[in-house]
Amino acid sequence: MTVNWEEIEKTATGWIINAGENIRNSLTDQLTILTKSNPNDLVTNKDKEIEKFFKKKIKEYFPTHFLLGEEGFGDSIEKVDGVVWVLDPIDGTMNFVHQKRNFAISLGVYENGIGMFGIIYDVLHNELYTAKKGQGAFFNNQPIPKLKPIKIEEAIIALNSIWLTPNKRLNHHKLSDLVQKVRGSRSYGSAALEFAYVATQRLDAYITPRLSPWDYAAGKILIEEVGGVCTTLSGNPLTILENSSVLVCNESIFNEVLTEYIEEK
Amino acid sequence: MTVNWEEIEKTATGWIINAGENIRNSLTDQLTILTKSNPNDLVTNKDKEIEKFFKKKIKEYFPTHFLLGEEGFGDSIEKVDGVVWVLDPIDGTMNFVHQKRNFAISLGVYENGIGMFGIIYDVLHNELYTAKKGQGAFFNNQPIPKLKPIKIEEAIIALNSIWLTPNKRLNHHKLSDLVQKVRGSRSYGSAALEFAYVATQRLDAYITPRLSPWDYAAGKILIEEVGGVCTTLSGNPLTILENSSVLVCNESIFNEVLTEYIEEK
Repeated sequence: MTVNWEEIEKTATGWIINAGENIRNSLTDQLTILTKSNPNDLVTNKDKEIEKFFKKKIKEYFPTHFLLGEEGFGDSIEKVDGVVWVLDPIDGTMNFVHQKRNFAISLGVYENGIGMFGIIYDVLHNELYTAKKGQGAFFNNQPIPKLKPIKIEEAIIALNSIWLTPNKRLNHHKLSDLVQKVRGSRSYGSAALEFAYVATQRLDAYITPRLSPWDYAAGKILIEEVGGVCTTLSGNPLTILENSSVLVCNESIFNEVLTEYIEEK
Repeated sequence: MTVNWEEIEKTATGWIINAGENIRNSLTDQLTILTKSNPNDLVTNKDKEIEKFFKKKIKEYFPTHFLLGEEGFGDSIEKVDGVVWVLDPIDGTMNFVHQKRNFAISLGVYENGIGMFGIIYDVLHNELYTAKKGQGAFFNNQPIPKLKPIKIEEAIIALNSIWLTPNKRLNHHKLSDLVQKVRGSRSYGSAALEFAYVATQRLDAYITPRLSPWDYAAGKILIEEVGGVCTTLSGNPLTILENSSVLVCNESIFNEVLTEYIEEK
């Protein structure tokens, strides 16, 4: 059976725009916030509602497809076979709860482990980032140019400040050297938006020692379509089956960042 | 002579909205970027153009008023006497150049050293933060609620990552402890927007060891109108005459942040 990717991508985009409207309308409501394992891992009713909406829609329209989602209403996936929708209904939950902005819906759709299309929707600002395998990336339906080479001294990087303090995952001294080397550093608190910023060259790298597949499934496709690089912090390929460290980078500084400034513990 | 503050504030807001439109329209143009003293201190034609526009307008409409501006086209101010417009035509220049977003026009107008009104305009997102002395603060003309007390473990703070690396101004070990204590940390690269975020309780504190008066002139008024605190990093009052370190904070955590986590060198 031939998969009609045009149709699937169009349908998925429509669902995401609808979910985004739903979220914007609800932002004045009182959100019931549950706390999962710790206070840094907030979860809201809205995450769950959107994931359930996708589960229902996918079952109805594309019954052979699987859903891998943050909230656990999807399928239990052990192999990359078939078509898998990898969804984060609200990426940047802390921002969503505290700021009511700077969060995104993130969806990457994979076929046999290969990213076919990715969508990142900055809900509050109504900004849509999309990418189709081999067909480029788009910002609000305008083509995003390929990334231009830069020097590391001109780079703006994103990383969470916590990795510059003593921690179990990364050598914070080396990362401190990187922060002192580059032109600037930022931290936005939404992996999906940080991928989207590297893809549009608003940032030149994003470094994080722990993400789940739904955090990067869309971003990986977006980055690769603009000529950027996306690997683990050891420089290995990412899969959509397990949590991973992630380096998203302008290719021109990738080797230098990876070898000089990143040391996993 | 009685000063008509209603009229001045209305006029100033109109000029800022106009300048913002001018900037948005120019964002597709090629910006000529000059480098001032170092690559971290970018300056563009647009900063200069907007400051000149304000200088001309103020001279025409309010000839007795002074202008203190980042680009140096204003007046040389040694005393706080009279009415002084303290302007940053583009706060967050690095963001403006690299991201074409996440920058603001910031204007605080002071009479004999007292902040009368402040305006911060997030140009790309068309979001306007205003405050009038004793009359409250507003986000897109809607009243901003007074800040609610929080616990430090629930706080989201903003600070540039560079202050978590060895530096000449702040004890980075103490700041590292703060980053590990709070719920989250962010860095946006625009002081004016970071003030606006604390004022709208999207952030709970913003810490920076070096700002110029035009970076905080508007934000200070905004913060004080929502019941927040804004001092130097020694806890002293800010003036509009000289550069300063700045702590912007929800009052409920101010003493703890100041005494436990900040140590100037």
